[in-house]
Amino acid sequence: MERIRLADDLTFSRLIHGCCRLADWGYSREQLLGLIEFCLERGITTFDHADIYGDYTCESRFGEALALKPSLRGQIEIVTKCGIKRPPKYGMKLYDTSKTHIIASVEQSLANFRTDYIDVLLIHRPDPFMNPEEVAEAFCQLKQDGKVRYFGVSNFKRSQWEMLQSYLPFPLVTNQIEVSAYRLENLEDGTVDLCLEKRVPPMVWSPLAGGAIFSADDDRAVRLRGTFEQVRGEVGAETIDEVLYAWLLVHPARMMPIVGSGKQERIERAVRALSLSLSREQWFAILQSSMGHDVP
Amino acid sequence: MERIRLADDLTFSRLIHGCCRLADWGYSREQLLGLIEFCLERGITTFDHADIYGDYTCESRFGEALALKPSLRGQIEIVTKCGIKRPPKYGMKLYDTSKTHIIASVEQSLANFRTDYIDVLLIHRPDPFMNPEEVAEAFCQLKQDGKVRYFGVSNFKRSQWEMLQSYLPFPLVTNQIEVSAYRLENLEDGTVDLCLEKRVPPMVWSPLAGGAIFSADDDRAVRLRGTFEQVRGEVGAETIDEVLYAWLLVHPARMMPIVGSGKQERIERAVRALSLSLSREQWFAILQSSMGHDVP
Amino acid sequence: MERIRLADDLTFSRLIHGCCRLADWGYSREQLLGLIEFCLERGITTFDHADIYGDYTCESRFGEALALKPSLRGQIEIVTKCGIKRPPKYGMKLYDTSKTHIIASVEQSLANFRTDYIDVLLIHRPDPFMNPEEVAEAFCQLKQDGKVRYFGVSNFKRSQWEMLQSYLPFPLVTNQIEVSAYRLENLEDGTVDLCLEKRVPPMVWSPLAGGAIFSADDDRAVRLRGTFEQVRGEVGAETIDEVLYAWLLVHPARMMPIVGSGKQERIERAVRALSLSLSREQWFAILQSSMGHDVP
Repeated sequence: MERIRLADDLTFSRLIHGCCRLADWGYSREQLLGLIEFCLERGITTFDHADIYGDYTCESRFGEALALKPSLRGQIEIVTKCGIKRPPKYGMKLYDTSKTHIIASVEQSLANFRTDYIDVLLIHRPDPFMNPEEVAEAFCQLKQDGKVRYFGVSNFKRSQWEMLQSYLPFPLVTNQIEVSAYRLENLEDGTVDLCLEKRVPPMVWSPLAGGAIFSADDDRAVRLRGTFEQVRGEVGAETIDEVLYAWLLVHPARMMPIVGSGKQERIERAVRALSLSLSREQWFAILQSSMGHDVP
Repeated sequence: MERIRLADDLTFSRLIHGCCRLADWGYSREQLLGLIEFCLERGITTFDHADIYGDYTCESRFGEALALKPSLRGQIEIVTKCGIKRPPKYGMKLYDTSKTHIIASVEQSLANFRTDYIDVLLIHRPDPFMNPEEVAEAFCQLKQDGKVRYFGVSNFKRSQWEMLQSYLPFPLVTNQIEVSAYRLENLEDGTVDLCLEKRVPPMVWSPLAGGAIFSADDDRAVRLRGTFEQVRGEVGAETIDEVLYAWLLVHPARMMPIVGSGKQERIERAVRALSLSLSREQWFAILQSSMGHDVP
Repeated sequence: MERIRLADDLTFSRLIHGCCRLADWGYSREQLLGLIEFCLERGITTFDHADIYGDYTCESRFGEALALKPSLRGQIEIVTKCGIKRPPKYGMKLYDTSKTHIIASVEQSLANFRTDYIDVLLIHRPDPFMNPEEVAEAFCQLKQDGKVRYFGVSNFKRSQWEMLQSYLPFPLVTNQIEVSAYRLENLEDGTVDLCLEKRVPPMVWSPLAGGAIFSADDDRAVRLRGTFEQVRGEVGAETIDEVLYAWLLVHPARMMPIVGSGKQERIERAVRALSLSLSREQWFAILQSSMGHDVP
């Protein structure tokens, strides 16, 4: 599988496995290990986590599976996030990007994963109460201690990116953003342009729009179902999923879709999408179907 | 006529003649040559085109007129655009800023104009599927081959400008944007500020708002008709058009309005606007009439 | 009181006294002098003005009070603004950031204040008709003549800031913007991020939202009243005002709230707010109460 370069000594697999619903899959440690190995066999080596996923349980479940075969750690990249606090662990939902919390969160993540380093740590959401000097101090200390190799953000717009980056002595390596043919916001508001400008490949969450294209009744979803079905036939894909992934994969921004499924068949669909080549006409047919009108 | 400097060895006439409706004027080659010479006599030396104007026919009509008097080529600046595909030449409307298409489009434009160079080539619209490395390769090759002297864009917002510029080894020389007292978007969203910041004089399309001020029934148009008529009287202009042009010409951004008419009288109005000096009070009276309220 | 550094030899008091309604207080010169000394005793040394406040009368009233005790001039920082023209002095409301007007406005301000220098001059509003070269010329001349020590802006968004700054040979030292728990625009649109990025501490106008939280019937105001009352009790503040100020003061952007009251008791509330320490949970409870929903 294609590898995407994020730094001199860091690459991600083009497809990333997402663990935000890992707790819902009901897998035993052995089954989860099997899923990880299934991913690795297909070249998916990068795994996306966050401290809060599964009510703060996904990291440790993943770590327990890894512990069955410690040699896997060197073959994978672990991405995790911090900065959101929420029930049940905390009394209310809020953001915390203080130095103390970032470091404590990473320490907990290391314990959960039973590893001594995180490959990439992301600030989960732009925090309107962020003290960028504290974030920089936390990042520098974590890097110096070897606990986190690289840093990035998630859901950041241009102002937030430029602001935080200006306090850091090293470049942020990714911005994890939502993009799909159903949700065009980050394509329309300049966030994807920002990633291209900064040479930062974005991790893409919700590449299938959470299934909305298949189930929602709004005009956009209805239009997209028809267009995706047509393009699916044209390119000979087995499922619409593959076309949804392909629409992102052929974009020049080197988007890395996060495949958030525990089912082998669904992961296979994403892998098959790597072989699809959408034409420019098909790409715009899907875009315009989503917008509901032609480009100007 | 005042000349606007875009690069060390490139200036445009303050007013630009726009050829997007050239095909509708029903002019013979000789009549079109006459119109070009009429412009030149008044100092308008810059002509704005696009591959797609007139269903892909305007460039070649203009080229046929030029061919009647080849010595004119050295006295004019030709601006043209690429990046939009549309029927009837293509099956659907879409953008294409691939290296292949940019170069092929320029080759066709050169053939249409019967010239061996374009003065300035613009990307017609920001392309959400743009590969900026390909655009840069195309631009560099075209420049090296002497086929295009300078490059710019059209309808780009800040994110799109910063992104594309970051891939180019030379500065973009203009951004062709819509501005008029009726359509304030680019004044309000920071795009005109961007042009000032980058020292890039904008070409301005639809400076008369496509006539909306004269015909539309919305409140803004009705208010503006009254205000323009009043200011016209105050400054002693013959027509409202002149005041519309003057409102742009007195702005510090060195806007270059595109006069898109084939009628001599209408072109004369734009030329007369160069002599009008609106006061700051008149400029704001028009702005506030458009907004429907005072500035804060 | 904490001092905020804006330049090598310029600091402001953390709280700023605002004189925009000074003309309404009905104070004699002696009473006004008493108010100024009351502020100074509490460490508030920075006073915010504008040419237009009080129908162009506030500066001179303040100057008359200062004239009673000229030694005070060296103990205070005077901030004033220019760039808005309005009745009754002018026939209509408009902006004027021409070199001529900026310099004439400062000369008038110097006469009004009976001083020979302004500490910081702000452009009051972003002027869509601004000629940044003229602004730069005016600023440079005023600085060279020793009439204005430093320059800033007010109500500028990123595009406007970047544009004007690009023409100046020295950095702008502040952006005076509206921020309160009731009006989140500048927190949400990236303007506060910009201040952090540029290391520019913002002066904050309308920190109490003009009293809207106490009187308005909209859902946001009603929700905020309840939340502020609860937090007031938790932190042991005497009034809700203190919590409103504290919500700004604990933010990392080093916001300098402008206290626009002539009543000693109200100024005392702002001073007491400096001793309050809101928790992160309280800060987000107020934010989320204003938004009407949790952060994402």
